[in-house]
Amino acid sequence: MYKLEDIPEMVLPIKNDLTSGAAEIALRAINIFQAMLADTDELGSDQIKERLKVTAQALIDAQPAMAPLFHMSNAVLMATSNCQTIDEIYRACDTALMEFEKRLCDSASQIADLVYELIPPGELVFAYSFSSTVVSCLLNARSKGRYFRVVCTESRPAMEGRKLAQVLANGGIEVVHTFDTAMGLILPSCRVAFMGTDCLGRPGLVNKVGSWPLALACRELGIPLYAVTGTEKFVTDERLFEFEKHDRPAQEVWTDPPKGVRVLNQQFELIPFSLLAGIVTEQGILQEKDINQYVSKLAVHESLKLESSFS
Amino acid sequence: MYKLEDIPEMVLPIKNDLTSGAAEIALRAINIFQAMLADTDELGSDQIKERLKVTAQALIDAQPAMAPLFHMSNAVLMATSNCQTIDEIYRACDTALMEFEKRLCDSASQIADLVYELIPPGELVFAYSFSSTVVSCLLNARSKGRYFRVVCTESRPAMEGRKLAQVLANGGIEVVHTFDTAMGLILPSCRVAFMGTDCLGRPGLVNKVGSWPLALACRELGIPLYAVTGTEKFVTDERLFEFEKHDRPAQEVWTDPPKGVRVLNQQFELIPFSLLAGIVTEQGILQEKDINQYVSKLAVHESLKLESSFS
Repeated sequence: MYKLEDIPEMVLPIKNDLTSGAAEIALRAINIFQAMLADTDELGSDQIKERLKVTAQALIDAQPAMAPLFHMSNAVLMATSNCQTIDEIYRACDTALMEFEKRLCDSASQIADLVYELIPPGELVFAYSFSSTVVSCLLNARSKGRYFRVVCTESRPAMEGRKLAQVLANGGIEVVHTFDTAMGLILPSCRVAFMGTDCLGRPGLVNKVGSWPLALACRELGIPLYAVTGTEKFVTDERLFEFEKHDRPAQEVWTDPPKGVRVLNQQFELIPFSLLAGIVTEQGILQEKDINQYVSKLAVHESLKLESSFS
Repeated sequence: MYKLEDIPEMVLPIKNDLTSGAAEIALRAINIFQAMLADTDELGSDQIKERLKVTAQALIDAQPAMAPLFHMSNAVLMATSNCQTIDEIYRACDTALMEFEKRLCDSASQIADLVYELIPPGELVFAYSFSSTVVSCLLNARSKGRYFRVVCTESRPAMEGRKLAQVLANGGIEVVHTFDTAMGLILPSCRVAFMGTDCLGRPGLVNKVGSWPLALACRELGIPLYAVTGTEKFVTDERLFEFEKHDRPAQEVWTDPPKGVRVLNQQFELIPFSLLAGIVTEQGILQEKDINQYVSKLAVHESLKLESSFS
């Protein structure tokens, strides 16, 4: 049987995954909850609830920038909090996970329809980092018969831009690829740009580092940049800044730096809404003013609440 | 004895050097001219002049963005064009090379004095790519007792930013290093930014790719960005766009890209003067309006003239 101490190791592959998008990682986290529940024979209901809490917290800590992990974990804890029996816990947890998965999939399909309309036929489209939502939108557009080419850059240090190039090429989309700093040479030929989202709140949008210079370049060149995200990425203000906890080892950037050189490896950054043409969600293409209505409705389980620095 | 056909091989190390600055490479090119002249025993003066022309053109073609290679080659051809005897050619060539080297060194020293005044004590300073001019300015400031730290990024794909980090750390300057797209996370802590220059003309400044997004970010954050360059990098309008010839092999970016993925590897880009706080030269800190007086005085040897697309 899994022990509580095994949980950090179970979530390690999620913690170390620097090349998958937030929605994709959330789907994998469902398996971790299911594995925990499939292996609780000798436990009472309180002990099972404790495991769910520890699993939830471990998943959130593994990728603090990725809102879907938070919301899925939160949904499991909220759904099971009033359950008395082990059976009730199992059923509530299963239902919460299934509903969350269905929400992700339904969102993806509605978002893809909106993105389809934003892709000008025959043109170059820029896509940054690796977002499973953006990928499914582009592949959907291609399969519906829209012809276009995609430009993407490497996304150092994890190089998930190469994964994007590979996946799109496999799906029959012609790809133009270059290194990150060369975006200024190819962007002027692009008509629209898309990026995924890790989380989004009233102060702005959090995504893979490099999104901010991309957004500046798009504004300078007059290229509309859309963030593509289901509303399951929306979070409260204090949760938004959790992404700053996601420091990674310096060795991922430079294995053996010389003495006197300090190497930084942060993976996410905040992009202000003023740099975006819009936020493509399953609720339509939203603007900054629309965010509050979704954020203010978010209920958070007691054990996952953060202390607000303003309270 | 070297043959004319050997010249492309002699300049190959310069063509393939992606991590050295333009001024540094010009100093190495002096050795190539000297090697050509040290090995002409059986040749007449016309044959020696022909070799100088072929060497000049090969050096310019090796790094078409790097203005000092052009000006040094041009100076050699201009100085020797009216020479009759072999001795005259030797002396004229030697003098031209020595004067060019002296000009580079004198420029560097005057520029370093100006840059010293631009470095705020105790602050973070951003430096991009690898410029021997910028390096000598920073090391000079440190050796004159100014304490500051330098932030630099990798400069994919050749990673000359690591070379910069290493050289500065060896010189006793503390360095903060990260990958290129993370510039937005560290730039807000910097008080000033410097970059080198490969060539500069009335339309703008040419430097390593990535300089343009850096310049946009600096403007957005209100950080003054200075180009640091001797006026030996100034060129005429048509010469400026020669940098677009400097395509590099795709394999330097991605060794084995999948089918359907086209990989671009261009190394230089144009930065408009409007994004710069100033151009630090041996003639003082110049602005766009000052450029013309230097550009209009440039005399070019007949064999190095480009056909202007507007003539």
